[in-house]
Amino acid sequence: MADPIRFWFDFSSPYSYVASSWIESLAARHGRGVRWHAILLGATFQAADLKSPVAYPLKREYSMRDFERSARFHGVPYRTPARFPIPTQNAARVFWWLHDRDPAHGPAEAARFARHGLQVYWVHGLDLSEPATLRAVCRDFGLDPDACEAVWNDPAWKGRLKAANDEAIASGVFGAPFFMIDDEPFWGQDRAPQMERWLAEGGF
Amino acid sequence: MADPIRFWFDFSSPYSYVASSWIESLAARHGRGVRWHAILLGATFQAADLKSPVAYPLKREYSMRDFERSARFHGVPYRTPARFPIPTQNAARVFWWLHDRDPAHGPAEAARFARHGLQVYWVHGLDLSEPATLRAVCRDFGLDPDACEAVWNDPAWKGRLKAANDEAIASGVFGAPFFMIDDEPFWGQDRAPQMERWLAEGGF
Repeated sequence: MADPIRFWFDFSSPYSYVASSWIESLAARHGRGVRWHAILLGATFQAADLKSPVAYPLKREYSMRDFERSARFHGVPYRTPARFPIPTQNAARVFWWLHDRDPAHGPAEAARFARHGLQVYWVHGLDLSEPATLRAVCRDFGLDPDACEAVWNDPAWKGRLKAANDEAIASGVFGAPFFMIDDEPFWGQDRAPQMERWLAEGGF
Repeated sequence: MADPIRFWFDFSSPYSYVASSWIESLAARHGRGVRWHAILLGATFQAADLKSPVAYPLKREYSMRDFERSARFHGVPYRTPARFPIPTQNAARVFWWLHDRDPAHGPAEAARFARHGLQVYWVHGLDLSEPATLRAVCRDFGLDPDACEAVWNDPAWKGRLKAANDEAIASGVFGAPFFMIDDEPFWGQDRAPQMERWLAEGGF
């Protein structure tokens, strides 16, 4: 089987949420899996000297509209959260804890947790940066909230997320969603048509 | 007939060049015309406190690759010009001169000039910012090069371009290509699928 598509996302990225709705099926159509990577957009923006599109007033207005329209275009339920953007390091640390704790099933469970977290934030507006809320989100997912809270406060898992951010930056990631098909980088949920053709034709 | 799609472009914008290859046929499929607007990206970037994607080293590397790939994706000939980006105010002033000189046929002739200028820069690498080169480009298009040079040095046509930039900024334009279908804004050559559906369904 060909290498999985790498998919870098931030829980607080609306376009990552939209991409999370189609990436698995797109990959499966071409006999590929998906390797999910939770990162902090703030870290990649800083490394690339960039800022969020919503940090610029004129671009923000368009972007907020385009987030919603892009979700509708893909038939994905979407509601702008009351608080946006939010810091997502705690959720991302839980992701990497799930990812690493079992080499056989960890990555798939972490991906399920990612989809769960993206859903509850982008559909139900639950603020993942609030510890009490994130504990409830973890509980709903079937995890022990005390264990999860211990994870996000643990220097070891803080270091694991930092390593993931550093690895993303070293791979050329400067935004999210960001994808790599073999060595070909694709940035943005709007690159789906190019990715589909790249996979079908082995490049173009 | 429904209102034309408004299309803002800069001669130095590779994604504007790619969009110029499909915008007329996309509009025609839905019974629309296209109203072309030559602008200076530098002016809209400044108004929105933005910079070109190629002003950021990490993003630049990806963008240069994505420019070429997006052109291949649309089957458009493309060669990165030796000098890029370039200042395009002279070419844009000639555009507005053609546009305004005849209300009936001016906009269509200006659009043809726009396609000509985008082609010679993005396929043949001719530096439109060099007066001697731009004179030759104007001559090839069938214009009197002395008249064109007088236009781009004329304060009246400088003012006309400034008014076009100001109008773009007032309309919310912060990059190129930028489109408006009735009152719905679309930014980027990668919004073609959304625009196609918007036109087919009258919104979504």
